[in-house]
Amino acid sequence: MKEYALNMHKLPVGVLGASGYAGHELCRLADRHPHFELVFAAAHSRAGETLRLPGRDLTLAPVDAVPLADAAIVFSALPHGASALWVARAQAAGAKVIDLSSDLRPGQGDQAMPDIDAPYGLPELNRDAIRTAAVVANPGCYPTATLLGLMPLVTRDLLVPGSPVIVDAASGVTGAGNSPRVDLLFGEVTEDFRAYGVGNTHRHLGEMRATLDAHGADVDLLFTPHLLPVARGILATITVTLREPLADPAALYRTHYAVEPFVEIATAPPRLRDVVHRNAVRIFVTPVQHVRTPTYQIFVAIDNLVKGAAGQAIQNANLLADFDETTGLPL
Amino acid sequence: MKEYALNMHKLPVGVLGASGYAGHELCRLADRHPHFELVFAAAHSRAGETLRLPGRDLTLAPVDAVPLADAAIVFSALPHGASALWVARAQAAGAKVIDLSSDLRPGQGDQAMPDIDAPYGLPELNRDAIRTAAVVANPGCYPTATLLGLMPLVTRDLLVPGSPVIVDAASGVTGAGNSPRVDLLFGEVTEDFRAYGVGNTHRHLGEMRATLDAHGADVDLLFTPHLLPVARGILATITVTLREPLADPAALYRTHYAVEPFVEIATAPPRLRDVVHRNAVRIFVTPVQHVRTPTYQIFVAIDNLVKGAAGQAIQNANLLADFDETTGLPL
Amino acid sequence: MKEYALNMHKLPVGVLGASGYAGHELCRLADRHPHFELVFAAAHSRAGETLRLPGRDLTLAPVDAVPLADAAIVFSALPHGASALWVARAQAAGAKVIDLSSDLRPGQGDQAMPDIDAPYGLPELNRDAIRTAAVVANPGCYPTATLLGLMPLVTRDLLVPGSPVIVDAASGVTGAGNSPRVDLLFGEVTEDFRAYGVGNTHRHLGEMRATLDAHGADVDLLFTPHLLPVARGILATITVTLREPLADPAALYRTHYAVEPFVEIATAPPRLRDVVHRNAVRIFVTPVQHVRTPTYQIFVAIDNLVKGAAGQAIQNANLLADFDETTGLPL
Amino acid sequence: MKEYALNMHKLPVGVLGASGYAGHELCRLADRHPHFELVFAAAHSRAGETLRLPGRDLTLAPVDAVPLADAAIVFSALPHGASALWVARAQAAGAKVIDLSSDLRPGQGDQAMPDIDAPYGLPELNRDAIRTAAVVANPGCYPTATLLGLMPLVTRDLLVPGSPVIVDAASGVTGAGNSPRVDLLFGEVTEDFRAYGVGNTHRHLGEMRATLDAHGADVDLLFTPHLLPVARGILATITVTLREPLADPAALYRTHYAVEPFVEIATAPPRLRDVVHRNAVRIFVTPVQHVRTPTYQIFVAIDNLVKGAAGQAIQNANLLADFDETTGLPL
Repeated sequence: MKEYALNMHKLPVGVLGASGYAGHELCRLADRHPHFELVFAAAHSRAGETLRLPGRDLTLAPVDAVPLADAAIVFSALPHGASALWVARAQAAGAKVIDLSSDLRPGQGDQAMPDIDAPYGLPELNRDAIRTAAVVANPGCYPTATLLGLMPLVTRDLLVPGSPVIVDAASGVTGAGNSPRVDLLFGEVTEDFRAYGVGNTHRHLGEMRATLDAHGADVDLLFTPHLLPVARGILATITVTLREPLADPAALYRTHYAVEPFVEIATAPPRLRDVVHRNAVRIFVTPVQHVRTPTYQIFVAIDNLVKGAAGQAIQNANLLADFDETTGLPL
Repeated sequence: MKEYALNMHKLPVGVLGASGYAGHELCRLADRHPHFELVFAAAHSRAGETLRLPGRDLTLAPVDAVPLADAAIVFSALPHGASALWVARAQAAGAKVIDLSSDLRPGQGDQAMPDIDAPYGLPELNRDAIRTAAVVANPGCYPTATLLGLMPLVTRDLLVPGSPVIVDAASGVTGAGNSPRVDLLFGEVTEDFRAYGVGNTHRHLGEMRATLDAHGADVDLLFTPHLLPVARGILATITVTLREPLADPAALYRTHYAVEPFVEIATAPPRLRDVVHRNAVRIFVTPVQHVRTPTYQIFVAIDNLVKGAAGQAIQNANLLADFDETTGLPL
Repeated sequence: MKEYALNMHKLPVGVLGASGYAGHELCRLADRHPHFELVFAAAHSRAGETLRLPGRDLTLAPVDAVPLADAAIVFSALPHGASALWVARAQAAGAKVIDLSSDLRPGQGDQAMPDIDAPYGLPELNRDAIRTAAVVANPGCYPTATLLGLMPLVTRDLLVPGSPVIVDAASGVTGAGNSPRVDLLFGEVTEDFRAYGVGNTHRHLGEMRATLDAHGADVDLLFTPHLLPVARGILATITVTLREPLADPAALYRTHYAVEPFVEIATAPPRLRDVVHRNAVRIFVTPVQHVRTPTYQIFVAIDNLVKGAAGQAIQNANLLADFDETTGLPL
Repeated sequence: MKEYALNMHKLPVGVLGASGYAGHELCRLADRHPHFELVFAAAHSRAGETLRLPGRDLTLAPVDAVPLADAAIVFSALPHGASALWVARAQAAGAKVIDLSSDLRPGQGDQAMPDIDAPYGLPELNRDAIRTAAVVANPGCYPTATLLGLMPLVTRDLLVPGSPVIVDAASGVTGAGNSPRVDLLFGEVTEDFRAYGVGNTHRHLGEMRATLDAHGADVDLLFTPHLLPVARGILATITVTLREPLADPAALYRTHYAVEPFVEIATAPPRLRDVVHRNAVRIFVTPVQHVRTPTYQIFVAIDNLVKGAAGQAIQNANLLADFDETTGLPL
């Protein structure tokens, strides 16, 4: 791939699954990236439809008619279950691949997936492995917010062993995709709010638990998502119990993320509009009063379609291509 | 007061602080109540403005020009700090009073308040004391949702002593009142979501802690409110640890609230639109998987302006007046 | 039918097409109507689903399994094209029928429809014919707003012959129904606004033109609908040229609608929230400055699901049943 | 000014009135502009507050403490009435000035304004005069949409003399600024829609009429704004009568705007989300059926804060500085 970067003006990239919200965002970001050239954008059932990009319109190709070999990097935003097969095909065609589905992420249980080695694509956690990977498993939106909120505590072993970690998170509706569903109609979502995946049953749980386990966190993660009447954005409200009080939790977070271009340690609780349309992760950490054990809250805001999906995929692609990690990503 | 009810067609009631959202809702409910007659609606700075009610418009009187003695029941929706004085005046004028401010609620700390004895106006908890009271302290919106969600467990002493009770709640903007504030403008709130009162600092905390204490709950309450881009409604997501697993938590809740006209035990997580414009409390309780201790989540939805304020005030007034508790309240 | 009303406690009514927004609203209104009893609620593809009504849940019956003969009045909210057949069947079974589809409305062109005589169910225009009808063609939502805004001028022959009547109207998304369509997803509609049916091509045009023609209006109606990011409500902004200036247009409108229980002549432009969840029609009329011909604007607001559909259907049913026209309708 | 551009890395620019929505957007755009350096951002009552820009925060300076002479170009987004004085001061200090207020725009009647010669800053209409101006009067948001929609017809003298031009426009709430007003609270605007400035009384009317007059249009402009429950965006629905039918109205518009970088002639009605956060003007033109005179509708969408204010100001500044007109502007 280095050859491309050196020898050609732009690196050719392609997108499979471009008709969903994440795929569309990916095409927008790839198209405006100074060193990428979007050579194809493909979809299954919506092939033939027009994809509007700033400055130009694009016709979605059928996934199985796409010249995989023409792309140095293939992004797959195909649905869970359908993606891994195309990851394997793109890899066989010689491309590096970033898979936005959950197929290759850790903690997916005993689903029968192709035997593909793919590091978990959270650069703040796993940068070195990503740089040299052939395939990257791009994280889910909720796991991105949750894990980045917890990692400074996990890696320092500050959480009380066996203690609960309560994550109440809320997401905009684009997190549920753009398939036509009655419960996602404007008339159903406006002026409403509700929890779903209650009782610790959300499909992102495995990914979060596996990653926490891999970093030695011995905690009981309890994750509850909610559906917000907004288009974009995730806010995670995380409550943890620590072994002992922290002198300066914000300083600890600032230190942990000192070199990270996309992580902002805020001095007040983050709002969705601090982060929408940006690849930012905005974090606020605060001690909790009136409780008997050292308890802290961490608030994390991201754009579910950018840092939670397409932006992070571009960040990973920059690592694969040895570009500056922030190239082409909206601040 | 009984005399009024027997001898007159309708019981005269008045509203102080009618210009806010809760006061307006109270006027609407009082005006359509079959046994109440709204004899005055008063405000401080917005006196003289028109209050639109279904079928008629009303001019807001100045608070200090109002004939308090004409009302059998006075509702005060005046601001916190300003209300207690008018409660005392209305009481002196011979009226029974329902105070929607926090002035007379439990757990308000050492604020200097008039020495008025006022039972806490949560009928599901305190019905008998309310019936015979001279003054009722109408609960806050968040405490209504939180306490009704917890009480079946508290009164059975099921919570692990010393354990945390995590309440992440979200409210529509009418909960913040209708004073002109930049951060409540449509342009600021739409497509946004944020936490506030973080670190266990919200002013409703004292009221909740005092009530839990009074019922023997030895827990660490951790309450975090969030601002939703909706006009009305509160959803509380509550996580608790129990001494041992419950065989049938829904049955326990159904039993606890069997005779309550406004409490609904749902079979799925409640949404705001299940409860808006109604005096309902809709509750769903579920065990939590993948954790080592018996953990449960309780989801509670109410309309912050109805069961969380004006509807509950009418419910209390019905008790004071010995009417059926549901009279005039929207199902 | 009079016999029912005299001899029975409540008049049995049924709803076909109860799964859409209008059908659901109709069931809610029928269920709370003091003199109606909802004896069935049926749907085609969503038969078997639960319909939530205040205080009780109801299972949708399959349309073709419904005992039509049990209802004194049948409401059909079935889709356009599918409704007329069931109107005929319900009529054959002995019921009076109110058809909320466009099938039997005036101006539908040469679609092949059963030969059913059905007066146009705009009570403010056509009350006497409705009272004695066997079948009533309930008006569309946009025609209701538009026609009620124009009729005081049309019946007085005040419009300049041959002049344009410009109607720019905007509707909440429930006007488009609750079939799952990508363009009606929350993520597509929030923070958006757009025109549709442009160039005078909307399917409601025939209904409006035919009704204006029937009342002798010789004008060029130009109707353009827009989609609002709200759940409910229609606002029509109407511009007309009159033969000569009016001394007091508001007085003219007040006189015209003096006896109408649901028409409100406002002193300021109406807003959607003046009318949502009500059967009201709120109208404001004003002269236009800085133009050379006598030009007026009429602003009309209704709730598309109430006065624009289900509420008007109940109003018509009250007329059929010889009840007070406002019975069971929200003020 | 050329000297700056040639001799220095970036051209210093300053913003007065940076605390409003348009001023904030202007600071964002100026700050990311590759050839501008934002040397001050000032406000009156909100001086001292923090202005958040992508990547950095900025403290608002007091307007009267600002080093006007340090800026080559000063933008004033101060309120109407207060702006012209500061335009004069900035000019006296040697800067070129772009005034976003209405103070210096055409058609402002007999308000006593400083005698400042300022061409109307609509580049598509007035590019040459802008290039050489000392002060530019940046257009209002509604006039930008309306005039760009009409100009292809006006300059070809296609409108019927004396005929009405009906403009029904709708704007997001940021068009009303961010002063705390009760009627702009989220709780008031959500799920609502209403007209204002009815009867042809909006303050933008003079600006539009004067510009149309200056280009020889002999028409009766009738402009009615509406308030949308969205943050950003304007959609104007314009109805006109032409002398004779057009063979290909879209072609006429494409020809007229062939060289314009920001004007898009669409093949379907534009939506707000086609244009928000962009400096685009998206136009659709269509003939009207079922009317007796040649009638056309023009639909125009812009972002009120970008092409309707701050983006257009940057476009004008690019002209003043002899940069490519699109520099630093979001496509």
